[in-house]
Amino acid sequence: MADRTHIVSVCDRYVEMLTAGDHEGIVALFADDAWIEDPVGTPRKEGKDALRAFYSTDHGVTPVMTRIGPACVVGNEVAFQFRIDIDLGGTAIKMTSTDVMTFDDAGLITSMRAYPDGEADPDA
Amino acid sequence: MADRTHIVSVCDRYVEMLTAGDHEGIVALFADDAWIEDPVGTPRKEGKDALRAFYSTDHGVTPVMTRIGPACVVGNEVAFQFRIDIDLGGTAIKMTSTDVMTFDDAGLITSMRAYPDGEADPDA
Repeated sequence: MADRTHIVSVCDRYVEMLTAGDHEGIVALFADDAWIEDPVGTPRKEGKDALRAFYSTDHGVTPVMTRIGPACVVGNEVAFQFRIDIDLGGTAIKMTSTDVMTFDDAGLITSMRAYPDGEADPDA
Repeated sequence: MADRTHIVSVCDRYVEMLTAGDHEGIVALFADDAWIEDPVGTPRKEGKDALRAFYSTDHGVTPVMTRIGPACVVGNEVAFQFRIDIDLGGTAIKMTSTDVMTFDDAGLITSMRAYPDGEADPDA
């Protein structure tokens, strides 16, 4: 089983690398056959090539992600939240995502499902 | 599709009714064929009889649950956190759970997966 401290540290690094735009760093956190569903309800993207394409997509904004609240780890699964702050040329937008991940015993992410909610105020 | 405000209010009522021990109230939030996985990784319990048995189990403690942080809603799915405070005869224990739920269009819960983590400090 993956170690709880390791799993929480991967959550931190994932959010930090999202902010830094470190796509290769993010992809390296995942197992080869990992899949993501972001946001939940959309088609899954599976495998490192699909993940690389997803994480390297330029959305024209530079959001700052910050992990908030406790990460909840059960076995090889985790759920955690992070705030997303976006500066749209002077207009500040904030939102929250909860992400859930599964890990393999080597500590690599095997799946990720994201619940990004534009109406979820991280300061509420 | 279920309404965002409704979904968030169900999260609140779920946590309040857990604290109150209102098992029938909790079961009434679910669709007839709903299933739960609590904690994640354990066998699913499906149908109202199984849910009633699960929520009415007396664990010999009276935890106080309080929803914390933003609830993240995407379509008919939600992820939210709540703190769990337990008074063990003068010894205070605190932990956090993240729960994810899916809803049907009528606003009933169709599934719930729980990530309760005894090491997740809600005050950290």
